[in-house]
Amino acid sequence: MWNRGSLKEILTDHGLASLGDSYVNFVYSLALSNRKREPEGTKVKGSILAEALRRAGLREQLPSRMSRHALADAAEALIVYAWLNDRLTLNECVRALGKTDDPVDGFTCVLVNAKEKITFP
Amino acid sequence: MWNRGSLKEILTDHGLASLGDSYVNFVYSLALSNRKREPEGTKVKGSILAEALRRAGLREQLPSRMSRHALADAAEALIVYAWLNDRLTLNECVRALGKTDDPVDGFTCVLVNAKEKITFP
Repeated sequence: MWNRGSLKEILTDHGLASLGDSYVNFVYSLALSNRKREPEGTKVKGSILAEALRRAGLREQLPSRMSRHALADAAEALIVYAWLNDRLTLNECVRALGKTDDPVDGFTCVLVNAKEKITFP
Repeated sequence: MWNRGSLKEILTDHGLASLGDSYVNFVYSLALSNRKREPEGTKVKGSILAEALRRAGLREQLPSRMSRHALADAAEALIVYAWLNDRLTLNECVRALGKTDDPVDGFTCVLVNAKEKITFP
């Protein structure tokens, strides 16, 4: 039920983006908690995800006129898609995000990984 | 770094509540997505968590004058604490929440499980 036929289909899927929003906030909160050695919850700003999507070379997969919000949605959709399809574990995401102080770097790394690991029939 | 000394300490921990908020939204979104067979994200209302905390018999662990918000925080803290300490897996949570149409029932079940499974030194 989670399979999509192409990268573009994933990046523009509103349902995946909506589920991905909660996943991304959770994994980033975990990474932050690990770094601070204290539990903490946070929300990831759309501007961070939109910039990470660009740096991961995924911007070109989408139409030229898209809001920052839609770009962030695309990032969230791809990240949770990789998790749902067992291509990127929660721990792999948390580790990648925890390796750097800069969340844009962290999410770029997660997105590059997700893009490389997903496959289509 | 995640260990706490007593149930009351967990239930009143703001950091755990904050991290738990993102965890609870994610696991509930997953349960909902499984039921609908379509990915979807959602936020769990505080009133649902506060009522589940009461039904799980955990209300008495807390001071008598507490807001519904603080009761919801307590539920979120306990649920993520059980996950952080490997007492309740993400899949166990999602399954418990997916068994019923009523989120209060689902979270009551998760909270009872969490309470039973956590241990203190």
